[in-house]
Amino acid sequence: MYLEKINSPSDLKNLSTEQMTVLAREIREDLIYRISQTGGHLGSNMGIVELTIAIHHVFDTPKDKVVFDVSHQVYIHKMLTGRRELQDFAGYANPDESEYDMFKTGHTSTSISLACGLAKARDILGTKENVIAVIGDGSLDGGESFEGLNYGGELGTGLIVIVNDNDISIAENHGYLHTHLAYLRNHNGKSENNYFKALGYDYVFINDGNNIAKLTEALRKVKGTDHPVVVHVCTQKGKGFKPAEEDRENWHWAKPFDKETGEFKNKAVKPGYASVTADYLLEKMKKDSKLVVVTSASPTCIGFNRENREKAGSQFVDLGICEQNAVSFTAALARGGCKAVYATNSTFIQRAYDQKEQEMCLGKCPMTLIVTHGSVYGHWNDVQSGLLDIVLLSNIPHLTYLAPTNAQEYLAMLGWSLEQNKLPIAIRVPGQAIFSNFENLDSDYSDPRFLVKQKGKKVAVIALGGFFSLGEETVKLYEETTGEKATLINPRFIGCDAKALEELKKDHSVVVTVEDGILSGGFGEKIAAYYANSSMRVLCYGFGPDIPVRYNPKELMEQNRLTPSCIVEDIQSALAVI
Amino acid sequence: MYLEKINSPSDLKNLSTEQMTVLAREIREDLIYRISQTGGHLGSNMGIVELTIAIHHVFDTPKDKVVFDVSHQVYIHKMLTGRRELQDFAGYANPDESEYDMFKTGHTSTSISLACGLAKARDILGTKENVIAVIGDGSLDGGESFEGLNYGGELGTGLIVIVNDNDISIAENHGYLHTHLAYLRNHNGKSENNYFKALGYDYVFINDGNNIAKLTEALRKVKGTDHPVVVHVCTQKGKGFKPAEEDRENWHWAKPFDKETGEFKNKAVKPGYASVTADYLLEKMKKDSKLVVVTSASPTCIGFNRENREKAGSQFVDLGICEQNAVSFTAALARGGCKAVYATNSTFIQRAYDQKEQEMCLGKCPMTLIVTHGSVYGHWNDVQSGLLDIVLLSNIPHLTYLAPTNAQEYLAMLGWSLEQNKLPIAIRVPGQAIFSNFENLDSDYSDPRFLVKQKGKKVAVIALGGFFSLGEETVKLYEETTGEKATLINPRFIGCDAKALEELKKDHSVVVTVEDGILSGGFGEKIAAYYANSSMRVLCYGFGPDIPVRYNPKELMEQNRLTPSCIVEDIQSALAVI
Repeated sequence: MYLEKINSPSDLKNLSTEQMTVLAREIREDLIYRISQTGGHLGSNMGIVELTIAIHHVFDTPKDKVVFDVSHQVYIHKMLTGRRELQDFAGYANPDESEYDMFKTGHTSTSISLACGLAKARDILGTKENVIAVIGDGSLDGGESFEGLNYGGELGTGLIVIVNDNDISIAENHGYLHTHLAYLRNHNGKSENNYFKALGYDYVFINDGNNIAKLTEALRKVKGTDHPVVVHVCTQKGKGFKPAEEDRENWHWAKPFDKETGEFKNKAVKPGYASVTADYLLEKMKKDSKLVVVTSASPTCIGFNRENREKAGSQFVDLGICEQNAVSFTAALARGGCKAVYATNSTFIQRAYDQKEQEMCLGKCPMTLIVTHGSVYGHWNDVQSGLLDIVLLSNIPHLTYLAPTNAQEYLAMLGWSLEQNKLPIAIRVPGQAIFSNFENLDSDYSDPRFLVKQKGKKVAVIALGGFFSLGEETVKLYEETTGEKATLINPRFIGCDAKALEELKKDHSVVVTVEDGILSGGFGEKIAAYYANSSMRVLCYGFGPDIPVRYNPKELMEQNRLTPSCIVEDIQSALAVI
Repeated sequence: MYLEKINSPSDLKNLSTEQMTVLAREIREDLIYRISQTGGHLGSNMGIVELTIAIHHVFDTPKDKVVFDVSHQVYIHKMLTGRRELQDFAGYANPDESEYDMFKTGHTSTSISLACGLAKARDILGTKENVIAVIGDGSLDGGESFEGLNYGGELGTGLIVIVNDNDISIAENHGYLHTHLAYLRNHNGKSENNYFKALGYDYVFINDGNNIAKLTEALRKVKGTDHPVVVHVCTQKGKGFKPAEEDRENWHWAKPFDKETGEFKNKAVKPGYASVTADYLLEKMKKDSKLVVVTSASPTCIGFNRENREKAGSQFVDLGICEQNAVSFTAALARGGCKAVYATNSTFIQRAYDQKEQEMCLGKCPMTLIVTHGSVYGHWNDVQSGLLDIVLLSNIPHLTYLAPTNAQEYLAMLGWSLEQNKLPIAIRVPGQAIFSNFENLDSDYSDPRFLVKQKGKKVAVIALGGFFSLGEETVKLYEETTGEKATLINPRFIGCDAKALEELKKDHSVVVTVEDGILSGGFGEKIAAYYANSSMRVLCYGFGPDIPVRYNPKELMEQNRLTPSCIVEDIQSALAVI
């Protein structure tokens, strides 16, 4: 076993090509075993085994600096840099963990910009190290990759950009660049109009990017370059695990699985919000040819798997990883007369704020933005948290950000939004297990109002979206504890309903807010500010700024006193001193 | 005079080339006259006169849809679409103003994405109109322009992208793409690796983009295209006004001027924050070769005019219009061992949130972000407001957002930030006229605290950053009115100092917050939330969500009760009912 003896990249230096080929096999076995236990990004890592070995074999890391884009392919890098036994093996690059990781990166397309900064710092400090960005073909679609390439070409000093081209993003690739890359792949790197050369790069093509000998030979040639070079490496996603080779989309990120049969464990039995959304939109599409649904490389966040994408035909558009384009594009679809929906994960909301504030909202383009995974249950990592979308979206002037509490309410809101043509609307899909409640659905959410679900007195709990059930449990426990009924409110949107809040002043003295997001800049602060010049006491529950690198949602909730017993305890303390 | 007879583009249809050439001359005279009175984007508009005429002559607007990127070149478009007499001539595209404007756009690089959305809507609806994006060479640097081009190439149906190449951004262009464009310009559109062709576009080159005949001929050929085409048009920025032809940077946006001599009226006599920043950083650079300052196409926001850029040499980097790249790049500069500063306008902060939250802050890269124009005095428009940066930056976990009240405090904070290497720091440059106050400067802002400038009782005014002077006037008026001294606090950072806020509970019953930004998600809401479960009354002053298309800062402040007399009146009302 070679793998056991690799404690740092220096242990790779004297290995022969044959030995590294054996090592690659050992790494694959280990990867399959580990990911089968924990789940993780299987496909991308299986494809990049040889490339990672070759990089650490040829370059002098950590003096030479390597930036892996987005971190979804760093497992081998972690294995080779002394972190083989790390329990949190499937996590992201983390500078707190290793000097071989320089940045926290949770979304694509930043590696070239980061490498440019390291290259410029090197030039300023007068050192001589190599700077290498490793970026997947899918990540090239994000505009920042172009911005980085464009500046790297101007900088003109040593910079190596390794394009790990496995011919697929999470789902299939989108954007003409992939037609271009396919042409290069099919013509041994020859093409009349080379994108990378147009931006000032030398261009090296490696057809078999899973061949250690070819990789080390090519990397040795570019090592020490004094100008920018793109090394276009063709690799096979999922290589070495047959199910992943055959179904690359479903093995991009794999749930725990049986490594003999390739069957996923813990199959979802109940439909989730993703499939509910897809079913609803597909049904609507059949009846309305003007409905167009847009995603940016995460189509399954709303259940548009391959089969559903085919069903939708030209009424579904995946744009690749380009959230800025997605917002402007969808706003224009709506302005052009379509019923237009853009759906994305909460964490990717962070990539396009300006376009939402300007093109979408100031320009009043009546598009619908569906935000999924906006919840402590969303991603469980600091770099891909689902806890910041409330502060981003709910403070955009004149954007109505709806927060349904259950599936029926969600579909009522979505259905209304699709049919109206006046307002840009965002909808936050609850992060919790799906449930339905047919009561109190509205047919118009253009001027949404808080909904009183239970009328009590003295204490009111305003429980937002997916945390409505926590509000329900809280008022129940409060009644059990004190014998008094508290008011329970489903606010339905992230903002203030002045009439409802005024009403509470009559016979309430404590208002509690509960939200599935960070407190700073969020929903609770708006309610607190509303009552700031009154005698109402407001208790706000949500998350503090400390989001752990990886977390257990239940534990994080407990740490933030997001439990019925903590909240009831605090209410009683507040009542005691009024 | 032809211009007087043009009430809509249909009046252009029957004009001959010669007549349109005369019209172009008339338009230039009118432009010079108008901008000399009001100020405005002179250079870009002077260059695009013929192209705008040709577009409206050849295409059937508004059925054919034209999207002008960022709006800094729409004055002629406004003239030709019935808005010649509009008082607010120098404003942005505005769909509320005309059916010829489809979107609100306040920042670059969105036009191709928007055009793609319109093209897709056309394909879905089965109509046949032309869709045209008009984008400047500088705007091509923004990653979204690549994202849009990349998708347009894939969409494959009719799309015309007119690249208005005047060979300059606001300042000189940056990024290798401009070397490529220059090659195309110098070789009559011929180049081995054509960027646009690599992305799936047909490519048409027009050498003399200020020649009506050549323009109309070329546009007629691409009219009705069933596939994507780039028309690369070379124009001269500032054409027809000698001072603007000769000094393109200073005439990009011109203050009111004497149209005979080209001299600007109302010359600034006192140094502003821009020049204070440049002087300070240049002096630091001389002593410290590790200091690197980065901007993204607006170098003069911190006074780095041409002369200062030359002085700074390789220690100054303008990246072109690419805020995402700029944040990642600067974070990496800092991680690579430089003292790294990125400076940008508040409104452009909106273009890169994710990179600030992740690469900069989660990764704890000790860079300094200088935010200028974050103020009601910043830009005076809805699409380029400086009122949203507080909500964006102050809610990023673990980012310290400092808010100096005057020049000395600003430089003390900046100086400290440059020398520390632990924390990412943002600094909000005050928006008001510069003044200095040498008292109470700290040497360490790593754990900033509120500063009590005047100790009073009952009422405390916490006046943030540039609005500190409003706080001073308020406590003065309060004392004059009531004979009582109020406490006055300079919070120095945008967050809560728990100790100071607790202290106030002892002998204060009303706390007032004053901030130069929107209230929703801002500073005041944090203070209100802090006191939410106490008897403290909090009054928050800032801006509501209604930011007019164009506004007078003083009027907007009055509308939002941001005057000493309104605030004192409200304090008295609050005290009366406690």
